[in-house]
Amino acid sequence: MVDAFTVMNALGLLAFAAAGALKGAEADLDLFGVVVLGVLTALGGGTLRDVLVGRVPAALRSTADVTVAFVGVALAVAFVVLSEDVRGHPALVVSDAVGLAAFAATGALVGVEAGLSPFGVVVLATLTGVGGGSLADLLLTRVPVVLREDFYATPAAVGGAGFWAATVGGATSEQALLGTAVAVFAVRMLAVRGDWRLPTLSAV
Amino acid sequence: MVDAFTVMNALGLLAFAAAGALKGAEADLDLFGVVVLGVLTALGGGTLRDVLVGRVPAALRSTADVTVAFVGVALAVAFVVLSEDVRGHPALVVSDAVGLAAFAATGALVGVEAGLSPFGVVVLATLTGVGGGSLADLLLTRVPVVLREDFYATPAAVGGAGFWAATVGGATSEQALLGTAVAVFAVRMLAVRGDWRLPTLSAV
Amino acid sequence: MVDAFTVMNALGLLAFAAAGALKGAEADLDLFGVVVLGVLTALGGGTLRDVLVGRVPAALRSTADVTVAFVGVALAVAFVVLSEDVRGHPALVVSDAVGLAAFAATGALVGVEAGLSPFGVVVLATLTGVGGGSLADLLLTRVPVVLREDFYATPAAVGGAGFWAATVGGATSEQALLGTAVAVFAVRMLAVRGDWRLPTLSAV
Repeated sequence: MVDAFTVMNALGLLAFAAAGALKGAEADLDLFGVVVLGVLTALGGGTLRDVLVGRVPAALRSTADVTVAFVGVALAVAFVVLSEDVRGHPALVVSDAVGLAAFAATGALVGVEAGLSPFGVVVLATLTGVGGGSLADLLLTRVPVVLREDFYATPAAVGGAGFWAATVGGATSEQALLGTAVAVFAVRMLAVRGDWRLPTLSAV
Repeated sequence: MVDAFTVMNALGLLAFAAAGALKGAEADLDLFGVVVLGVLTALGGGTLRDVLVGRVPAALRSTADVTVAFVGVALAVAFVVLSEDVRGHPALVVSDAVGLAAFAATGALVGVEAGLSPFGVVVLATLTGVGGGSLADLLLTRVPVVLREDFYATPAAVGGAGFWAATVGGATSEQALLGTAVAVFAVRMLAVRGDWRLPTLSAV
Repeated sequence: MVDAFTVMNALGLLAFAAAGALKGAEADLDLFGVVVLGVLTALGGGTLRDVLVGRVPAALRSTADVTVAFVGVALAVAFVVLSEDVRGHPALVVSDAVGLAAFAATGALVGVEAGLSPFGVVVLATLTGVGGGSLADLLLTRVPVVLREDFYATPAAVGGAGFWAATVGGATSEQALLGTAVAVFAVRMLAVRGDWRLPTLSAV
C-alpha cells in the first residue's frame, strides 16, 4: 500500500521540479540549465534533510525520486513551449507553494522519526521546504527567496511546529502530514495574495 | 558541572548570533532576515562541523544551542534599536572575533575527538570558525569575508594547529580550549587593528 | 601496491588544485585567496562525495590528500610567477579537464561501492567532478561553470553512467576507472575545442 509520506514526497518532487525548471526558463538558461535547476530544486531539500540526520540521501538510493523529478521538468518544459510567456505566471507560484507545503511536512516527519528536539523538527521542516529553491537561487547568484520574502520560510517553520505539536497530541503520521501540508499551502498562498511583509528594523 | 566545551560553545553562539544579526541590520534586511542571518551565523559553523564528522548536528538535537542563539539575536536587535548607527561599529568586530575564537577552539576539540589527521583538525577548526559567517555572506551574495580578509581564516587555522600540538604535548582539553580561544582572539584583533594583509601574486 | 583509485585520486587533486589556484590568480586574489581556492577546488568534490555516502571525508582523515593539493597549488603559483599572463591559458583548461575526468571516475567507483542506484552513481560522479569548482565559483560569487557551460557536467554524468554499465558488464574497477577517465577527458576537450552548446528553450 502506498503511504502518505510517499504521496507527499512525490507531490513535492513534481511541483518543485516544475517550479525550478520554470525559474530556469525565466532566467533564460539553456535546456541543460533548465533541467539542472529543476532537478536540483526538487532533490536539494530532501538531500539536505537526509544528510543532516545522517542518512544516505533518498535521491541517491532509489531511482523513483529522480524519475518523478524528470517528469516534473518535462511538464514544465511542455508548459513553456506551449505558453507564450511564463514570467510571473501563477503556475510558478502555485507549484512552488505545493512543493513547499509537501516538503515541510515530510521534513517534519523525518525530524520526529530521528528523535530531534522540537526546534530541530522546525529547522528540518524549514530546510527541507526551502533548501532546494535556495540552492537553485545560489547557483543563479541571487539572494535566495527565503531572505527576500518573509512569508516563504515562515509557513514551513510554523508547519514544522504544528506537526510536532500534532504528534505530541496523539495524531497519526498520516493526519499530521496532511494537516501540515494543507496549513503551509494555505498560509503561503494567503501571504502571496496579501503581499504580507514584516517590518524592517529601521522602521521600529 | 558545566565543562569548558559548553561554556566556549555558548560564548561562540551568543557572539556569532549577535554579529550575524548586526550584519543583517547593516544590510537593511527586515526583522525576519535579521533573525535568519543571526541564527544561521551562530549555528552554521557547528552544523558543518558535525556533518563532516558524521554526527547529527547539535543544533538539531538540543534546544539549548538555539535558545542561546536567539538570546544573541535579541541582544543585537536591542543594540540596534538603542544605538543611532551600527555601520562599522566596534561591537560587530569584537563579537565576531569572540565567535571566531570560541568556535575554532570547539572545532579543534571535536576534530581531535573524532581522530582526524592534524590537517583535519586544522580544517575543522577553520570551518567551524568561518562556516556560519560564510553561509551568511553567501545568502547575501557577497564574497565571504574569509576571502576578502587574509587574517580571518588564518587565526582559526593557526589555532587549530596549536590545539593539536597542545594535546599532543599533554595539555588537557580545558587548557587547550582556553589557550586556543585566547590566541585566536588576540591574533584576530591585532590583524584588524594593524590592517594586516598578505601580498598578491602580481606583486611577487 | 598502489591501486588505480589512489593514482586517479592523486591526479585529480593535483590537477584541480592547480586549476583552482590559477582561477584565483586570474581573479586577482592575494596569495592566501589563491591557496584557499586551490585547496577548496581540489578537496571540495571528494568531501561532498564522502558526506553524501556517510563517510568522514578523506581530506580530513588522511594527510596525503592535502599534501598533494598543496603541491598542485605550488606548481600553479610557480607557473604564474614564471609566465607573463595566465588569462585563458590552455594549462588551466587542460588541468581542469584532467581533474574533472579523474574525479568523475573516483566518484562513480565510490557510488557503486556504496550500493547506490544507477542514477545515484551518475549524480555522485557528477558532483565529485564539478563540486570543488562550483564551491570555488560560489565563493567568488560567480554563476558556477556547471551552469554556464553545457558540456562541463555532461561528460562527468555520461562517465558515471558508463562506469556503472561497465561494472554491470563485468569490467574490473581498474578497467572501469581508466575507461571512464579517458572518455570524460576526451569528451570535455572536444567540447571545449568545438564550443559545443545545447539549444535554449526560447529557440525551441
